[in-house]
Amino acid sequence: MNERLSQQLEFLKKADGLKGINRKTCLLDGTRKENSAEHSWHIMLTAMTIAEHSNENIDLLRVMQMLALHDLGEIGPGDTPHYLKNACSENAERLYAEEIFSLLPKEQGRKYYQIWVEFEAQETAEAKFAAAIDRLWPCIQNYHNGGGSWLEFKVSLQKALEMNRHIAEGSKPLWEYVECMLRDASHQGLMKPPGL
Amino acid sequence: MNERLSQQLEFLKKADGLKGINRKTCLLDGTRKENSAEHSWHIMLTAMTIAEHSNENIDLLRVMQMLALHDLGEIGPGDTPHYLKNACSENAERLYAEEIFSLLPKEQGRKYYQIWVEFEAQETAEAKFAAAIDRLWPCIQNYHNGGGSWLEFKVSLQKALEMNRHIAEGSKPLWEYVECMLRDASHQGLMKPPGL
Repeated sequence: MNERLSQQLEFLKKADGLKGINRKTCLLDGTRKENSAEHSWHIMLTAMTIAEHSNENIDLLRVMQMLALHDLGEIGPGDTPHYLKNACSENAERLYAEEIFSLLPKEQGRKYYQIWVEFEAQETAEAKFAAAIDRLWPCIQNYHNGGGSWLEFKVSLQKALEMNRHIAEGSKPLWEYVECMLRDASHQGLMKPPGL
Repeated sequence: MNERLSQQLEFLKKADGLKGINRKTCLLDGTRKENSAEHSWHIMLTAMTIAEHSNENIDLLRVMQMLALHDLGEIGPGDTPHYLKNACSENAERLYAEEIFSLLPKEQGRKYYQIWVEFEAQETAEAKFAAAIDRLWPCIQNYHNGGGSWLEFKVSLQKALEMNRHIAEGSKPLWEYVECMLRDASHQGLMKPPGL
């Protein structure tokens, strides 16, 4: 048996665990919570479909790789909702990412960890665009599901704008769309009312 | 609102339906059936991880795009297991693919349909590698889940070898791995016994 292929398949078998990590947001039809693996597919499809709206020229393949890998750190500790992330949850995800990437041939594991860190650091054009795409769907999902995790976590319009404004750093047209949707959601009572 | 972005988001919302399409194979831990969206993520992750084992030089971005799109035709008619595919099920998937891609800006919808057709036609190096990756996981899943859909659809070793041999056209090392696994599965009684 080819030794490199064998190591790569062990990593890929472990990665199957992402299908069991449930997120706080529901599918668009509201039937159940979404898991992080199907979310990852959806954002990869989104990235390739709306790449033209990135503020800067991007290496689309690197964006796709980043989105395929970016949630793998959740397999151990589980998904932490955007509005509850902190240094502790971020550290737990980093440790698990290191662990799962160490199953790969050494230089490939290092490359994947670098891509994972690049997404977290939010400095390159690819990381900013990938993060914009990643934030888009929870907003659309909550909007179509009666408020969803906005109401569950008592998120106000001000908080939602603040937590999602970085979408503009990846794609200005996308942020225009999301900002408009957030304001309309608040107007419809799908967020915590101001002052409460 | 940006008209192109609006059309692209309508397509992407419709694509969310792939998360509701259940396949016949189970997750590796056997807890439930897999859906086509999370399967699509897993094969994209696989393609980028084992691209070095492709028989020919490939355009990895095109392979990733092909794998992101290749199952979208299932949203209308549902998934047809590999061992039961026929002209009728293939036609239903083609019609739905045409329908969903028509939501996109015209030239983009045409490009996506061409990528979808390229996968189905199995002529280019990218399509052959993508198909090899697509077939890999049902074999691993059945192997780890006591026979799974092999027993459900009364698949013999001969039939499994015949239906999966095309993996060798995309990647010879991968086919060596899968062939060995199929023979071992039959030996363990995870397939229909010969002559029954």
